[in-house]
Amino acid sequence: MRDFDAATSIAPSGEGRWAAAIRPGWDIGGRANGGYLLALAGRAGLLATGRPHPLAVSAHFLHAPEPGPVEAVIRVLRDGRSTGTAAVDLIQSGRHFLSALVSAGTLVPAEAPHHLVGRPPSLPPVAACIRAEGDLPGGSRVGLLDHVDMRLDPATVGWAVGRPGGRAEVRGWVRFTDGREPDPLGLLLIADALPPVTFDLGLGGWVPTLELTVYVRGVPSPGWLRASMRAQMLDGGWIDEEAEVWDSAGRLVAQACQLAGTRVPGRP
Amino acid sequence: MRDFDAATSIAPSGEGRWAAAIRPGWDIGGRANGGYLLALAGRAGLLATGRPHPLAVSAHFLHAPEPGPVEAVIRVLRDGRSTGTAAVDLIQSGRHFLSALVSAGTLVPAEAPHHLVGRPPSLPPVAACIRAEGDLPGGSRVGLLDHVDMRLDPATVGWAVGRPGGRAEVRGWVRFTDGREPDPLGLLLIADALPPVTFDLGLGGWVPTLELTVYVRGVPSPGWLRASMRAQMLDGGWIDEEAEVWDSAGRLVAQACQLAGTRVPGRP
Repeated sequence: MRDFDAATSIAPSGEGRWAAAIRPGWDIGGRANGGYLLALAGRAGLLATGRPHPLAVSAHFLHAPEPGPVEAVIRVLRDGRSTGTAAVDLIQSGRHFLSALVSAGTLVPAEAPHHLVGRPPSLPPVAACIRAEGDLPGGSRVGLLDHVDMRLDPATVGWAVGRPGGRAEVRGWVRFTDGREPDPLGLLLIADALPPVTFDLGLGGWVPTLELTVYVRGVPSPGWLRASMRAQMLDGGWIDEEAEVWDSAGRLVAQACQLAGTRVPGRP
Repeated sequence: MRDFDAATSIAPSGEGRWAAAIRPGWDIGGRANGGYLLALAGRAGLLATGRPHPLAVSAHFLHAPEPGPVEAVIRVLRDGRSTGTAAVDLIQSGRHFLSALVSAGTLVPAEAPHHLVGRPPSLPPVAACIRAEGDLPGGSRVGLLDHVDMRLDPATVGWAVGRPGGRAEVRGWVRFTDGREPDPLGLLLIADALPPVTFDLGLGGWVPTLELTVYVRGVPSPGWLRASMRAQMLDGGWIDEEAEVWDSAGRLVAQACQLAGTRVPGRP
């Protein structure tokens, strides 16, 4: 079984209850990646609704869980003709740490989109991009990068050498390290895998996500994905981040938005 | 009491249960507007968490409710130092029709945003815009427009005279008809009040929202709001719509995204 599938595996444990685990090493400085938790909730939602693809998944993050067993409490809210919706609550040691709503169905893209604005992020070739390393200066680790192979556009990683671009933008090539091909569930992770765009604003530190929503728009073709993330506004301690993921065939396969907390130097 | 506050009023009716009503006339062709339902869930979330402002509200739409009494079942999931989160389920005659997650807190904007991309939608003066009328050709009614005064940019309403712009974009001035000034809760409605951008693609008909997320970014100044909505992709029967709301002082006060179903002529 591939890394990602093992780390998001889940099994029924009673009426509306499922057992899973937060695997160590899918973290950023010890805290499980938000996209990883979203994918775990997404898989629970797919199993509960009996649908193959997540369409829209929204989660509010309540606490940072530790590695170890977790329980998913799932309620199927709707079982319709073309879509189903489930509420997924993830609980650890009696404490709710994530609440998600998962709408799922079957993606049937047309030959070409009826309407499309934008194009895949313009990136240098993979070999000319910069591999994101798990070991950070200062000793902290991004374990997530052992599982996700990320090659960042040099134009958006000036922060790594003390020259942030100031555009609140980051983009790069992304795939699973172990060769697992992307699929709709995996996109829930990939859509939140890039470094926080606050780095590009010269701001370090943790950017805890309050809310994360991902729309999966297509079944990705095999190969490298191209992902971009940008922020429109940082104000009053909150920042939005919008992400896009495009597949190797040049199709838009996921869109994401999130609201996260951040500390701005000089602010109370 | 103002229109909007009456239409979203809610009162405790037992342990974790609240009583409210879907008021007639906040609809589009008989179906309650999604932003109106989001605002109802948002008010429930504010009351349950004891916080003044919605920060991030995500909802999945399960069924279209009828005017009449509804019950809100509310669980407070987190009661933190700066934010609280509640799950709000709206139920009518025993049937779940909306499930929402509401994170709330206190908005404290800085003098100016630390980072901001974009500016308010460029619009002709209010008097040069086109008032959206509730009576549509064919006899259907948009009751919502009795409560929301909307002046659309002529450049984005070509569809009203058979010449859709093809850009999947609409923008205009928006305020409550009865003079109620905008506030963070009201933005949950305003962020979904514009006509669907599918009109600008020459597609008529209902565009049922599957998921809607709104981030409230500021406490709006009194006066007209400027709103814009656009879509990035329509594919396989699904369309995304991203909205922004700016206040009279030129601040970005809300961002929204949604995924909605749509029928494209010629598609199976």
